[in-house]
Amino acid sequence: MAQDLVEGAAFPLDDAQANYLLRVLRLVADAPVRVFNGRDGEWEARIVDVHGKRASLTPDRLVRPQPDTPASAPVLLFAPVKKAETDFIVEKATELGAARIVPVLTDRTQTRTVRLDRFQKIVLEAAEQTERLDLPEVEDLQPLAKALDGLADGTVVIFCDERGDDAGAPWGGEKGRAGPIADVLGTLGDKPVAILIGPEGGFTLEERDWLRQRGDTAPVSLGPRILRAETAAVAALSVWQALKGDWR
Amino acid sequence: MAQDLVEGAAFPLDDAQANYLLRVLRLVADAPVRVFNGRDGEWEARIVDVHGKRASLTPDRLVRPQPDTPASAPVLLFAPVKKAETDFIVEKATELGAARIVPVLTDRTQTRTVRLDRFQKIVLEAAEQTERLDLPEVEDLQPLAKALDGLADGTVVIFCDERGDDAGAPWGGEKGRAGPIADVLGTLGDKPVAILIGPEGGFTLEERDWLRQRGDTAPVSLGPRILRAETAAVAALSVWQALKGDWR
Repeated sequence: MAQDLVEGAAFPLDDAQANYLLRVLRLVADAPVRVFNGRDGEWEARIVDVHGKRASLTPDRLVRPQPDTPASAPVLLFAPVKKAETDFIVEKATELGAARIVPVLTDRTQTRTVRLDRFQKIVLEAAEQTERLDLPEVEDLQPLAKALDGLADGTVVIFCDERGDDAGAPWGGEKGRAGPIADVLGTLGDKPVAILIGPEGGFTLEERDWLRQRGDTAPVSLGPRILRAETAAVAALSVWQALKGDWR
Repeated sequence: MAQDLVEGAAFPLDDAQANYLLRVLRLVADAPVRVFNGRDGEWEARIVDVHGKRASLTPDRLVRPQPDTPASAPVLLFAPVKKAETDFIVEKATELGAARIVPVLTDRTQTRTVRLDRFQKIVLEAAEQTERLDLPEVEDLQPLAKALDGLADGTVVIFCDERGDDAGAPWGGEKGRAGPIADVLGTLGDKPVAILIGPEGGFTLEERDWLRQRGDTAPVSLGPRILRAETAAVAALSVWQALKGDWR
């Protein structure tokens, strides 16, 4: 929920929340519920002031303080794909501890709009399911260049380049080569990272050239099989968590 | 396709194949197609003998020889969950290079039957999409103990124990502790592995005790957030490929 959670400070539930608690879960006045908002920790609260379809909630007791999102948790930049797969990426990025989720427009991105409210709902549900109290920020669809400009200073872009080093690519040389993801992560120390996943069909040659020429960009390979965008997103976040994140 | 692929040896297409090539793709006699069957490599072939809804195919030229599945590619043992998630696990395990996919019955497995023909179709489609010529074997649903008995000698079971070491667990001690997955994989050398993913709700205390007492079992943790079964499957396979498999 969006409301502030403060001990004893009752607040009115919005229509959807009241409907869920009173009609779907069939809770009544004084029923205990657990709530969190991504900022104030997890609270034991009580339903109060039930009047027809309306009710309020009083936070009684903090049961789990708000954890700090590790400063180094990765940003996920991804080109939205089909609806089900895009939803899936947002859900899994939340489960896998992404700090920020940014849909980006690339030359081959088919989707030109996203439903930010829908993403926020998915993030909230996934956070509840995974018992994560901090919510990743979700941003609106934006051009790739703008998203890269918006990264914190020193962030290394882990560029998941599914095409690897095809013959004829104009860059070549050591600088541009996509290394195995475990090796590349091993060279980064504690630098913050953003994981970049391309659209179906991959990045254009121009984009790949531009990305590889850019500073603070580490092209990585996810093996010899072509992965779908949603698989690559889950794979890269998992490997990062296992090697550099809070799975250690 | 299931048919053998031998240079110049034409074979009749089955109804679904003929329908796909002639009606959906609207191909005509002599049209070139690429085919593979998981055994004989990838072939350039031609449509021949078109008669109404029927046709045959002649393999002309081997374009990619059949690769060996690495002997060490992991087996995936998983408790089937809901239909969409189960399909997803089979698809992603194929993309992520599993050698064998085995649905297992555990105490809390809700699903009591699986559609093996459906799994085989998913595996074939995912292999085509990911440009993988070898197909993982898919087995029928079987009790967990039987699946473990069916593993090659020396296979280490990577037991993804989402509950970690809750207080009150009867095992405790160093032997039973779930270690970070990257650390545990680092101790295994080149031993073959099977990755074991539990059902929604996890394994029962009895199963977890039994698994941890078993030899050749390495309990691993996938971090502080509770992952859904399908996320855990993709995560564990990805980390294995990055550290021990063909993503290196």
